Amino acid sequence: MSNIQLDHLRQEMDQMNKELLKLISKRADIAKEIGDIKEKQGVPKFDPVRENKMLEQLVSLNEGPFDDGTVRHLFKQIFKASLDLQSAEHKKHLLVSRKKKAEDTVIELQDGTIIGGSESVLIAGPCSVESYEQVREVGAALKASGVPVLRGGAFKPRTSPYDFQGLGVEGLEIMKKVGSEFGLTTISEIVDPRHIEIAADYIDIIQIGARNMHNFELLKEAGESNLPVLLKRGLSATMEEFLHAAEYIVSRGNTQVMLIERGIRTYEKWTRNTLDISAVPIIKQESHLPVLVDVTHSAGRKDILLPCAKAALAAGADGVMVEVHPDPPTALSDSQQQLDIPQFEDFFKELKASGLYKSTVNV
Amino acid sequence: MSNIQLDHLRQEMDQMNKELLKLISKRADIAKEIGDIKEKQGVPKFDPVRENKMLEQLVSLNEGPFDDGTVRHLFKQIFKASLDLQSAEHKKHLLVSRKKKAEDTVIELQDGTIIGGSESVLIAGPCSVESYEQVREVGAALKASGVPVLRGGAFKPRTSPYDFQGLGVEGLEIMKKVGSEFGLTTISEIVDPRHIEIAADYIDIIQIGARNMHNFELLKEAGESNLPVLLKRGLSATMEEFLHAAEYIVSRGNTQVMLIERGIRTYEKWTRNTLDISAVPIIKQESHLPVLVDVTHSAGRKDILLPCAKAALAAGADGVMVEVHPDPPTALSDSQQQLDIPQFEDFFKELKASGLYKSTVNV
Amino acid sequence: MSNIQLDHLRQEMDQMNKELLKLISKRADIAKEIGDIKEKQGVPKFDPVRENKMLEQLVSLNEGPFDDGTVRHLFKQIFKASLDLQSAEHKKHLLVSRKKKAEDTVIELQDGTIIGGSESVLIAGPCSVESYEQVREVGAALKASGVPVLRGGAFKPRTSPYDFQGLGVEGLEIMKKVGSEFGLTTISEIVDPRHIEIAADYIDIIQIGARNMHNFELLKEAGESNLPVLLKRGLSATMEEFLHAAEYIVSRGNTQVMLIERGIRTYEKWTRNTLDISAVPIIKQESHLPVLVDVTHSAGRKDILLPCAKAALAAGADGVMVEVHPDPPTALSDSQQQLDIPQFEDFFKELKASGLYKSTVNV
Amino acid sequence: MSNIQLDHLRQEMDQMNKELLKLISKRADIAKEIGDIKEKQGVPKFDPVRENKMLEQLVSLNEGPFDDGTVRHLFKQIFKASLDLQSAEHKKHLLVSRKKKAEDTVIELQDGTIIGGSESVLIAGPCSVESYEQVREVGAALKASGVPVLRGGAFKPRTSPYDFQGLGVEGLEIMKKVGSEFGLTTISEIVDPRHIEIAADYIDIIQIGARNMHNFELLKEAGESNLPVLLKRGLSATMEEFLHAAEYIVSRGNTQVMLIERGIRTYEKWTRNTLDISAVPIIKQESHLPVLVDVTHSAGRKDILLPCAKAALAAGADGVMVEVHPDPPTALSDSQQQLDIPQFEDFFKELKASGLYKSTVNV
Repeated sequence: MSNIQLDHLRQEMDQMNKELLKLISKRADIAKEIGDIKEKQGVPKFDPVRENKMLEQLVSLNEGPFDDGTVRHLFKQIFKASLDLQSAEHKKHLLVSRKKKAEDTVIELQDGTIIGGSESVLIAGPCSVESYEQVREVGAALKASGVPVLRGGAFKPRTSPYDFQGLGVEGLEIMKKVGSEFGLTTISEIVDPRHIEIAADYIDIIQIGARNMHNFELLKEAGESNLPVLLKRGLSATMEEFLHAAEYIVSRGNTQVMLIERGIRTYEKWTRNTLDISAVPIIKQESHLPVLVDVTHSAGRKDILLPCAKAALAAGADGVMVEVHPDPPTALSDSQQQLDIPQFEDFFKELKASGLYKSTVNV
Repeated sequence: MSNIQLDHLRQEMDQMNKELLKLISKRADIAKEIGDIKEKQGVPKFDPVRENKMLEQLVSLNEGPFDDGTVRHLFKQIFKASLDLQSAEHKKHLLVSRKKKAEDTVIELQDGTIIGGSESVLIAGPCSVESYEQVREVGAALKASGVPVLRGGAFKPRTSPYDFQGLGVEGLEIMKKVGSEFGLTTISEIVDPRHIEIAADYIDIIQIGARNMHNFELLKEAGESNLPVLLKRGLSATMEEFLHAAEYIVSRGNTQVMLIERGIRTYEKWTRNTLDISAVPIIKQESHLPVLVDVTHSAGRKDILLPCAKAALAAGADGVMVEVHPDPPTALSDSQQQLDIPQFEDFFKELKASGLYKSTVNV
Repeated sequence: MSNIQLDHLRQEMDQMNKELLKLISKRADIAKEIGDIKEKQGVPKFDPVRENKMLEQLVSLNEGPFDDGTVRHLFKQIFKASLDLQSAEHKKHLLVSRKKKAEDTVIELQDGTIIGGSESVLIAGPCSVESYEQVREVGAALKASGVPVLRGGAFKPRTSPYDFQGLGVEGLEIMKKVGSEFGLTTISEIVDPRHIEIAADYIDIIQIGARNMHNFELLKEAGESNLPVLLKRGLSATMEEFLHAAEYIVSRGNTQVMLIERGIRTYEKWTRNTLDISAVPIIKQESHLPVLVDVTHSAGRKDILLPCAKAALAAGADGVMVEVHPDPPTALSDSQQQLDIPQFEDFFKELKASGLYKSTVNV
Repeated sequence: MSNIQLDHLRQEMDQMNKELLKLISKRADIAKEIGDIKEKQGVPKFDPVRENKMLEQLVSLNEGPFDDGTVRHLFKQIFKASLDLQSAEHKKHLLVSRKKKAEDTVIELQDGTIIGGSESVLIAGPCSVESYEQVREVGAALKASGVPVLRGGAFKPRTSPYDFQGLGVEGLEIMKKVGSEFGLTTISEIVDPRHIEIAADYIDIIQIGARNMHNFELLKEAGESNLPVLLKRGLSATMEEFLHAAEYIVSRGNTQVMLIERGIRTYEKWTRNTLDISAVPIIKQESHLPVLVDVTHSAGRKDILLPCAKAALAAGADGVMVEVHPDPPTALSDSQQQLDIPQFEDFFKELKASGLYKSTVNV
């Protein structure tokens, strides 16, 4: 008996579901019309006062069985879905989103270096630029190994104001000199919005570091530059925040942005940061921008750089960044985690031997 | 002109909102009827197969403007609200919830000690029971200061199997002896479900430690005991998980449960754990159970125990736990963080002087 | 027999300890002499090449029983202690450290408002400056309640570039107007180093937000300003990093710095951030700077602001920051967590009633 | 002139370093002798009272230039190194450590399945055992694909006591039946120390889950079993704690232990947990035990299981665990994250096609 009753009730419910769908869809059409009018008027689409009034009215009409909180919750969901629909073009489909642009962004540099697409790229070099000789030694080794991009920090964001802060513009000059000497693409971190403009005189790619991922003025300025930008994930940024930080740059017109996972801050003490490997496939899925992995800053120790780099490429990363110094124990920063040149050569040889590093142009 | 249009559209939308509310409420009534029938049949109320079919049907009928994902999302919300309604009595209103029982749970021990309500309580004693003399010395000091509850670990969950594991039942015997000597309520951690039963022969309150907050077999066994239980929050348990762990005990019939915040694991290195002070008012709001704070394990250092204890009481905690040892440098565990007896006496004197420790019975 | 042996061996060991102390101290004296010479020569004191050579030499001489790793470790500790000794004045004793300056830094503003010392201070106001009317309404309420400092964001660092970014300089003008109308001290966040200079034309205190705690260029620029600076702890900054960020400002000459704990990022979902209450006593101990707590951003929910504020003051904080908006549901940012004006008045009344808010000047 | 002085001082320092090394080594020899005597007496080697006395004596003799804190620190390091030396065999060289046993532990099951060494292994099956039909369907698919190990939960540790708790022993019976039907190795989680003994009647491998990694009584009991144990890393366990948990099992005599990384709890919301990929190479380096990766619980979402599994193998993992269910939307637990059978077949095909899954025996 009760099963017949159940069947009957279920049929009623199916009918009600259909009516609900019809009504919700019709409501969404009206919301869209309202949005179109507002767009023409240049008025913001989200109107919290109006939304609040509608909610209050609904609650005042509520006779159960849902409590008022649930009514509020359900209608907020419906309002939000309608609003998302209205502003889909602006909000939901970020410029960095794959929903906006399905094909991979591929960055081609003047010397033919390619980042993204089906090419793997290796970026290597010392943590800090310390001298011409030091950078030159690394540059020569990269050239010999076929590594296309040379990194080196001229402006160093350091925890303490008394730690070595980098050589500044002099460091950029060294990068330029060594880059042109060996035909290497150069990348260096810029930390001040007032330096973005001059960066183009010295380097090929601007790096924005983890500590500045939320420095929106710097991001905006980088969005005005013609140089490609390598944006690091913040120390404890969510993937969502990371993508939004990239959106700050892209929305200003600079579409040549690369994202680089560099580990997140956790309680674990055996690594400097925890390499969030799942960020690689998720961000590749969510965004068309190239995704790289900085194995040095993730691990903070030399002995696991090779397996981490392999994991990064296996997970779908477009490239890897690693720190190399001619004499790590004397380095002015990050002395424990930089590879020396023979270690680096082994690292790259084994990475290529694994078959995970795919390159036709870059090597 | 467009404003007239806007007003018109808004009126239409208001009308639609009302219809939607009517329809959703009617749907919920039917869902409730179905739930009642299922309850009589002893069948689980949540039927994922049926829910899936309904969603597929709705998606197949969807003609926009929402995409299928949004339709799925909105209807899942509606389904969930209906289900919550059906099983409100079982799920939403947990036994530990204040929605289920508005007034504070107050635990009264045989010797008149009260935990909860408007009384503050201090629980103190050594990390580990090491000898009768050691515990006796602390017990005498507690008695002299008017502290009602003596703690002491007989079974010690230690990271390494080679660290001191506690004196076991011999430790419980020492607790019993000292407790009855000074008329102190005693509390000790139990780590094995097979020991819950014998605990009642030795101690007055069972402690379940942070590492065992998710040891559900132990929780279930504690739920069968007649002794009050002090449940510690897990190393990285959410508040929601913490309340559910308590529900494991209470749902087995033991309603005398106290919750104790003891810091959560974060990246910060200057404290052993991060004392989550907001957990105190939130859990007091969500649950009727007494909430205490273990300042020793939160901080992992002696020098901030007093301000942390004040903060705990100011935030609404019903009590504080602190470790005291006659000779901390020689302690077999946690030697850096235990107070010695004069330090403890100062600690308690200053805590009382702050006016935050409210007690008519306990001191 | 073996006990006699033990005693004998222990005496030998005591003797050896003494010799070791003598030798280590003598070594430190020489290290100091070397440091003095280097200081005169303007050469960096830490010489990793030399250190490396010494370690290699020691390892080559090592005949056990320690393995080479242990020898390296022990001598690195000894080297480091000597180096710390050499550069104690520069590094160990930061300007912000209480070891450098024992007495509390007390900040006195022109209108007599005092931050630090034995005064509690309340800073309140809307998340964002939205209009003159909105800020005026809050300003009037603060004045009526006796709150000395008005906050309001003109430059808003927002996760998405499409969210409301603040009114900019127009917002600062509104702050100035309302501040002077009611005789309130004003504070607003500055996010671009290029705006630090003009800030002095509009506001009384510069706020540096959590997302910019590691924006060293901004910190350096703030160090050149004459305005007091309120520095927020970064989203996942350690206390050590927080103090070093303050050192960036103070080392440039601006000693009027206040620190504000605002919760750290953890896995817990029932609060927006986890208020790290232990940071209050620890930072007060480590530093002479005033320490405040932003209860609004820590909690991210209205219902626990009062207990959190009480906890902050009980833990020793010099003040509390809270967000107030005339109509929170319509706020352009943080709408869920701002108090409305009557809620705010209750909040402050109860905070004062608790006896934890100590003020002779500020109310 | 000052350079000559420098050279002279450096020679003096070199001399002192040598003397220090000699003295420290001699001291260590004595410490060892003392340790040997204590070992014979059965007295614990670490004597905090004696250590404290020595430190006090040294501090009382200290005439600078080090402050007392530094003297205490340096001597504690020296004492600790000596103690480590004494108890190296027990403590430093854990049984699970590669320093104790250089070659990989390889676990061979009766049916020829091999875990560890140069073989990759895939463990697959439903989250919960729900019925014989359900497990049989998965078992048949595994057999057809050449997957050697079938997982299925009979005892389910669930956050809420009202969630499905598993079929218990009936579930184990189903595992046994399906296992023998298809010649598959079976693994199931045991949560109660009282069930370890009976486990051998039903399953081939005992799993200890993340929530029980710190349930030391369960670990000890598992150490008495003859079955291999798969130990999951705790929700927020450090690698060090993970290895010590394994040591609890191995030190009781059961050497057949496999470790499985399953993601750690972080603030990131787009994954259920954060897969700590660096744990794979680090633990492989520190320990001789096989290391696997549970991609399902790490990710908590289906769409990135393949890249995560590739990353795991590329990083050196000995195998991967993945959840498969014949009809995931109806699953009684973890319905969003389980693969259906065709998805699973694709997953395994692509994993093998990547060349990262090395198997001669297991497929």
